[in-house]
Amino acid sequence: MPSKQTIETLRAFTAERDWAQFHSPENLAKSIVIEAAELLECFQWGPEFNQRKVEDELADVVTYCIHLAGVLGVDLDEIVLRKLEQTRTKYPVEKARGRTTKYTELDS
Amino acid sequence: MPSKQTIETLRAFTAERDWAQFHSPENLAKSIVIEAAELLECFQWGPEFNQRKVEDELADVVTYCIHLAGVLGVDLDEIVLRKLEQTRTKYPVEKARGRTTKYTELDS
Amino acid sequence: MPSKQTIETLRAFTAERDWAQFHSPENLAKSIVIEAAELLECFQWGPEFNQRKVEDELADVVTYCIHLAGVLGVDLDEIVLRKLEQTRTKYPVEKARGRTTKYTELDS
Amino acid sequence: MPSKQTIETLRAFTAERDWAQFHSPENLAKSIVIEAAELLECFQWGPEFNQRKVEDELADVVTYCIHLAGVLGVDLDEIVLRKLEQTRTKYPVEKARGRTTKYTELDS
Repeated sequence: MPSKQTIETLRAFTAERDWAQFHSPENLAKSIVIEAAELLECFQWGPEFNQRKVEDELADVVTYCIHLAGVLGVDLDEIVLRKLEQTRTKYPVEKARGRTTKYTELDS
Repeated sequence: MPSKQTIETLRAFTAERDWAQFHSPENLAKSIVIEAAELLECFQWGPEFNQRKVEDELADVVTYCIHLAGVLGVDLDEIVLRKLEQTRTKYPVEKARGRTTKYTELDS
Repeated sequence: MPSKQTIETLRAFTAERDWAQFHSPENLAKSIVIEAAELLECFQWGPEFNQRKVEDELADVVTYCIHLAGVLGVDLDEIVLRKLEQTRTKYPVEKARGRTTKYTELDS
Repeated sequence: MPSKQTIETLRAFTAERDWAQFHSPENLAKSIVIEAAELLECFQWGPEFNQRKVEDELADVVTYCIHLAGVLGVDLDEIVLRKLEQTRTKYPVEKARGRTTKYTELDS
């Protein structure tokens, strides 16, 4: 993840514009949170939303995530699955079922 | 994107814990920005970073993006590529090359 | 705003720890969004909240806002009131009353 | 904090537009992070910034903080000073001096 086509298309887009120079991990992390907040803006005043607008803002978040994964040299599927194993340990089924309690408070 | 294995693994993880009930688009959008800010925290005081920590936080952002794509019924590769075509129009190579100027100010 | 006592107390706190060196406008802007996301985390899964926890997270956001105002050399009351005059123009009472429509779409 | 004039002016502004109905703590928390990300956008690609733009974005963050304090029924100076006392305990001068290490790792 993402597909090779997506990775290649994004890389070419960036190269054509000579933008890789701006894509430090720090700048990409800022960009991800900036786009994530634009996604949230779709829900600023309530749960109703415009599907197309939400898709477009989600795409922006994921685009910068793909750029950051590229700069870090990691595969998104791999780190997502690896992180899930940690989360699995923090949230055992029997304790976490049907609850949003944070793992640090699951025992209390 | 992501791979079918990742999607299936995340879906099973959520189902086992009966967490789909909390995964409204609005809650997922909040979750994405919350995790994006944790990613940014890796760079709070400067550009140096811990590679593994950044990978883990990026994984959290992408995990919620995958959940949101699932709830919206869209494919991440598709919306990323579609959005890229819009961005291509906003940032023509000849104007945007080597600059971070926002598209609204590219002509000025 | 804030009171002189608050400004002085925060300044002394920072000076004692020799932390002013880290308080660049950029780092403070990152810190504000990081703390704002922690505030949002109080509402991650719904509108219910823990009053004390929300107060503490709001305090963290405002603390960094005060630091940034200090570094910029501006008074928070002044910039809030100045900005409000702009917002007043964007959202005339007769058009904006009882609606959350963004100003760019108020006429449509 | 803020001054009575600022509080009264903001309150009148909101009342004229009948916007208090939208100002739930959750919506205000979302709004604070949305505005905080716009502030961060001033520094998306580096530390240089436009002073007036940063002031305006900071004003937006603080405006929503004032609204949230109003809804919660708390005084911003009070909660900032109260929170500072907790931070003081987490970051003793002798350990925290000149370092950005998080309190959870100060002893390690």
